[in-house]
Amino acid sequence: MSDLSATERTRHRRLREQGRTDREALFEVLRAGFVCHLGVVVDGDPMVVPTVYGFDDGHLYVHGSVAGRSLTRGTTVCVTITHVDGLVLARSVFEHGVNYRSAMIYGVPRVLEGDEKLAALRCLTEHVAPGQWDYARRPNRKELAATTILAVPLAEASVKVREGHPEDADDPHDVWAGILPLTRSWQAPVTDPHAAAHPVPPHILARTTPH
Amino acid sequence: MSDLSATERTRHRRLREQGRTDREALFEVLRAGFVCHLGVVVDGDPMVVPTVYGFDDGHLYVHGSVAGRSLTRGTTVCVTITHVDGLVLARSVFEHGVNYRSAMIYGVPRVLEGDEKLAALRCLTEHVAPGQWDYARRPNRKELAATTILAVPLAEASVKVREGHPEDADDPHDVWAGILPLTRSWQAPVTDPHAAAHPVPPHILARTTPH
Repeated sequence: MSDLSATERTRHRRLREQGRTDREALFEVLRAGFVCHLGVVVDGDPMVVPTVYGFDDGHLYVHGSVAGRSLTRGTTVCVTITHVDGLVLARSVFEHGVNYRSAMIYGVPRVLEGDEKLAALRCLTEHVAPGQWDYARRPNRKELAATTILAVPLAEASVKVREGHPEDADDPHDVWAGILPLTRSWQAPVTDPHAAAHPVPPHILARTTPH
Repeated sequence: MSDLSATERTRHRRLREQGRTDREALFEVLRAGFVCHLGVVVDGDPMVVPTVYGFDDGHLYVHGSVAGRSLTRGTTVCVTITHVDGLVLARSVFEHGVNYRSAMIYGVPRVLEGDEKLAALRCLTEHVAPGQWDYARRPNRKELAATTILAVPLAEASVKVREGHPEDADDPHDVWAGILPLTRSWQAPVTDPHAAAHPVPPHILARTTPH
């Protein structure tokens, strides 16, 4: 697999040591979440909306929604995915920070139609809610028409990772310093009262079982 | 307190029922997190970067970093804060979704200087890491000069909240449906090996203690 292309805007001018250029680092960040922030330009101003995504080797598939409909054909979007792993509590306020993993993807999205759209929606659904494409009712023609899926090429991206302890161990202000980790976890599924007749299916239970 | 102004772009054209217009809803979303996604337009394209924030009654204070330096004076930014609370697992793929709380704030930021900058940095620090402004070493002149803090007026904002069960109880595809909650939690602090001589201070311990 090739490295991600480094353009002027993804060259990590700041905090160079936090930048990663290999594609595997990008996929690690993509695998670890399912909500991204989609940035588009609307009437000259930025608009940032949270939405769900899925991906394959070559593309990020983003549920379009408002931002998708605001897009003019051929314009660039910026999709950012961020995982917050904890606070970096340093000796100095200046060295305080966040441990995080983040990917920023730039590209000109294509609005998918037909079989491509269905395949991308399946990919997205299986990323967000594995097992549900086969378990739930698949979209009919009308529902598919009401869904916007954007495909953004995974060609120009920047990955940044900050981990570990604060970097001001030599600060003369000699106090406690360290990390306050922040974790996310799935809780037990809550059954819709209208679905009480059905047991929770194994593919849902599996997500909340440690493995 | 007045309602948030509803401009064309914050009028909730889509999913109207998810929109909230009262200021308290905005502050609830702001209180629940400390990382936002800052959207700016750079050379005509969108750029979305994660960064930390704090706030008071009138302004959001955003740590500027790359995006801050890319800003042209007088241009609008969009700051989005999103909390993902779980997956909505419906009977139909179409009705699948995410339970979330989100705020989108539009405004022309002001780059703060002098006493205003110091006060905003204190506000931001105390929001992200309560107690640290008094415990850690405060920024010296050089560190303050190397920090960019943007103040975005809390005047034009849109808050959206999606909670509860899927809305397709009448779908003929009669299977299990419900919610898979996702929670975030602070873990026990990890002491920097270079700070092992110092006990974890009470204000840090307090964050990970249930209360």
